[in-house]
Amino acid sequence: MNQRLSSAENGTSVGVTEVSDVQNAIEERLTQTVMNSFDGCQDERLTFLMKALVRHLHAFIRDVRLTEAEWNSAIEFLTEVGHITDDRRQEFILLSDVLGASMQTINVNNVAHGDATEATVFGPFFTENSPRIDNGGDIAGGAAGQPCWVEGTVADVEGRPIPHARIEVWEADEDGFYDVQYTDNRVAARAHLFSDDDGRYRFWGLTPTPYPIPHDGPVGRMLAATGRSPMRASHLHFMVSAPGQRTLVTHIFVRGDELLSHDTVFGVKDSLITDFAEQPPHTPTPDGRQLGEQSWSRARFDIVLAPDTIATQPAAVHAG
Amino acid sequence: MNQRLSSAENGTSVGVTEVSDVQNAIEERLTQTVMNSFDGCQDERLTFLMKALVRHLHAFIRDVRLTEAEWNSAIEFLTEVGHITDDRRQEFILLSDVLGASMQTINVNNVAHGDATEATVFGPFFTENSPRIDNGGDIAGGAAGQPCWVEGTVADVEGRPIPHARIEVWEADEDGFYDVQYTDNRVAARAHLFSDDDGRYRFWGLTPTPYPIPHDGPVGRMLAATGRSPMRASHLHFMVSAPGQRTLVTHIFVRGDELLSHDTVFGVKDSLITDFAEQPPHTPTPDGRQLGEQSWSRARFDIVLAPDTIATQPAAVHAG
Ligand SMILES: [Fe+2]
Ligand SMILES: [Fe+2]
Repeated sequence: MNQRLSSAENGTSVGVTEVSDVQNAIEERLTQTVMNSFDGCQDERLTFLMKALVRHLHAFIRDVRLTEAEWNSAIEFLTEVGHITDDRRQEFILLSDVLGASMQTINVNNVAHGDATEATVFGPFFTENSPRIDNGGDIAGGAAGQPCWVEGTVADVEGRPIPHARIEVWEADEDGFYDVQYTDNRVAARAHLFSDDDGRYRFWGLTPTPYPIPHDGPVGRMLAATGRSPMRASHLHFMVSAPGQRTLVTHIFVRGDELLSHDTVFGVKDSLITDFAEQPPHTPTPDGRQLGEQSWSRARFDIVLAPDTIATQPAAVHAG
Repeated sequence: MNQRLSSAENGTSVGVTEVSDVQNAIEERLTQTVMNSFDGCQDERLTFLMKALVRHLHAFIRDVRLTEAEWNSAIEFLTEVGHITDDRRQEFILLSDVLGASMQTINVNNVAHGDATEATVFGPFFTENSPRIDNGGDIAGGAAGQPCWVEGTVADVEGRPIPHARIEVWEADEDGFYDVQYTDNRVAARAHLFSDDDGRYRFWGLTPTPYPIPHDGPVGRMLAATGRSPMRASHLHFMVSAPGQRTLVTHIFVRGDELLSHDTVFGVKDSLITDFAEQPPHTPTPDGRQLGEQSWSRARFDIVLAPDTIATQPAAVHAG
């Protein structure tokens, strides 16, 4: 008998299943047969992807000794995910998000490069044609929330300022809703601006607040069944682009937010956690804006763009 | 730099991608974080399954260096699979079938045991409440095709005959259609019978013919894009049950069928390939039935059931 290890999820917990040599040979032969079925594919990359998919999918089934009842549950779950998905609701993306598959894809496509700012998930709430604001302008557009002054620089990995970089910013209001979730067609809490001649930028936004991903569907039920929260840590979205640079899609997160350690889509990276310093009412604002009895906050986010020559990790080559 | 091998699909073709130690650490930490997010789950088996799913899914994304465009294509593909699926069409099961996931699950749940007859996929065309026939009866019920005499024995792994085992048989007609695919509600080419006091059975059916799985949807397009055929090798379905024995779901296949080596759902096992001996017109039939100018065939299938004490591979235990 071979011992096959359903190898340690965390280095200490191990599931062990005894599988006979005869049985192992049957299972391995099947995996090989399925992989070979793609040998007639004319697209080298697609062949490589399908073979790797089969290899990992079969390894999962064999490692966990998937029961037929569990297979049935998986088919039913995917069917529900498919049926709730429509033009406005994308439950497969949610599923990818809560399994960390979206974030891992972001990692693979935005490889670490020097001091370049780290990327995180894009999320479903970006829209084209956001309003343009000048430096120092306000993105709120009437959305409710505590005013927040955000400023910083855009530079390349050599430390050279990047003037006129395009900076898209978008965020939820204090109730956790993006404008696209409003029932009217208002545009709020989103805008774009450009870094100035010295690579500097500044704007008024809202202090970020937490919100749940849509959790009234099968993905929400999976989170509930596994004891997980549907909440995202508070964040402010950025997309920063400039000629010759790799476009950066990222967030900044609020230091001290208790959700940082269990953001449901795993978007948090230590380097993206930012001080949002609370300012009591009547604290003078950077631009002289009068906020009356309202408190506000301020954050600094210095952005470093990688060159676009390393935009994407080169895809694995099928050298066969 | 570490070299990560997208390890050989077939032992000779290898994709190699250079990933820095820093980048590897980022990717590994994410996988660990996602796995740990299931630590609050109260169901030990579900925890184990989800962690293993995350581990394999992330390994796939990292091994192939999945691009964002490929991730988008995968989301779109699954969305289409979800949208074509309804009460009559189950495209997720088709997808599982053509990736060999269904067959691998069957393997895992029907471990090899002595001379026990091997299992294969159940397929979508079984129905409850098939008509009962006596030994020697005809299952065709008017379905078109060449008559085929099928006989054999049912025994346990000690070689003892099993009397009164329930034998369900079902198959496609000569045009490749099951009765449930007809537009009327006829029941045809399916029945159940019982082995006799000596564990023997015999019936008239139809010589099996090949048929395609439904291939007008996204799974069919995937098969076309990868150069694969949607055809199933010709087969006759069996489900055999008896008290104290593991229920056997299997097929017999036609020796010499050119589709045996590339059955699209990978159901073929060598031990299930059976001689269907062609009988010219006027060859005397085993039961004296008069077939006029029609040719016929005959096949022998001796069935061995494993004890139900080893019905299912014990699920991997989460010893944590
Ligand atoms: Fe967001
Ligand atoms: Fe079939």
